[in-house]
Amino acid sequence: MSTGPTGPVTHDPLKRLSSLLARLPGIGEKSALRLALAIVKADPEFVRNLADAVGSVQNVLRFCRVCCDLTAMDLCERCADTRRDRSVICVVAQPQDRMAIERSGVFRGVYHVLHGVLDPLGGVGPAELRIDALLERLRSDHDDIKEIIVATSPNVEGDATALYLSKLVNPLGIKVSRIASGVAVGGELEYADVTTLHRALEDRRRL
Amino acid sequence: MSTGPTGPVTHDPLKRLSSLLARLPGIGEKSALRLALAIVKADPEFVRNLADAVGSVQNVLRFCRVCCDLTAMDLCERCADTRRDRSVICVVAQPQDRMAIERSGVFRGVYHVLHGVLDPLGGVGPAELRIDALLERLRSDHDDIKEIIVATSPNVEGDATALYLSKLVNPLGIKVSRIASGVAVGGELEYADVTTLHRALEDRRRL
Repeated sequence: MSTGPTGPVTHDPLKRLSSLLARLPGIGEKSALRLALAIVKADPEFVRNLADAVGSVQNVLRFCRVCCDLTAMDLCERCADTRRDRSVICVVAQPQDRMAIERSGVFRGVYHVLHGVLDPLGGVGPAELRIDALLERLRSDHDDIKEIIVATSPNVEGDATALYLSKLVNPLGIKVSRIASGVAVGGELEYADVTTLHRALEDRRRL
Repeated sequence: MSTGPTGPVTHDPLKRLSSLLARLPGIGEKSALRLALAIVKADPEFVRNLADAVGSVQNVLRFCRVCCDLTAMDLCERCADTRRDRSVICVVAQPQDRMAIERSGVFRGVYHVLHGVLDPLGGVGPAELRIDALLERLRSDHDDIKEIIVATSPNVEGDATALYLSKLVNPLGIKVSRIASGVAVGGELEYADVTTLHRALEDRRRL
């Protein structure tokens, strides 16, 4: 009954909604059904808003022409904000990583969103990421940029992406750094995994 | 910034979608953002279908005029199926409970969906449930109906609802039964909770 990308054809509107929801990441069949039923029973105005938000988000969102973050405008809020420090670019894998760093309030530079990390086994190579846009940005604003901080997650793919970027960016004479990793602040050493402990010891700081 | 039922006003379409999704049950802020980003990056045809399914599900779904289940027609598939045994009505709390029983394939009678269980503390009384519709159904088809099986969950609210229904239905001369509860088949006795063990012992069957 499958018709390819649109999923199975069904004349039951509840099954249709639920099977579409089940195709979203992290939503299993049971959650999808629960969500579909919640939508059926929700306030009609909320449902109209939700349908409109789903239907319009792709039309109104685009990539910031500087940092490739998602934005409703030509330039994202960060890139358009003249008070931010343009000499430091924090490179993140996804928009949600940028949001997490913004929430922390500790970074006042600008960003670059790669929209993924290198993952050869998953079919993600450099061409699938916004690496060319980063390099072009580094070349065109070369004299104003002092450092890029690679803030991909400290796992195999995130580390590989950081290493790959450092090899491309170092020859441009721009400093490349990597966020620190180790035992989480407030975390218990006892429960830290072996790799984290290894990294925490290796990257120890002199006091 | 809140404007009541439609949630906070925002001009960021991603935040708007994500805050609407976060109002669905079981979807936290982080999941909502993850889902919103997945929608942004999804196949546009899928997104159009999803928006349409969300927007139309309330318009096309109604309550079956016999069993109160959700359906796109006047009569649901079960009530319209003349091969089903109309002498036994299985009373369930929600459409997903009916679906679970249908999936099991062990029941060939018809259903009645209450759309909730009695929960005085949560403000759900008999008037909030489809109990009147059940009673009217029992009265009008009185001679054809032999039994109602109350298949609400075996917890305080589900048991109270079953007891309440039995008091209303028994005087009509129709048999009322309750699904069995006890240690789940394939489950470990060792891990069963006290109440389940209590019920399992109390409802023991002679072999």
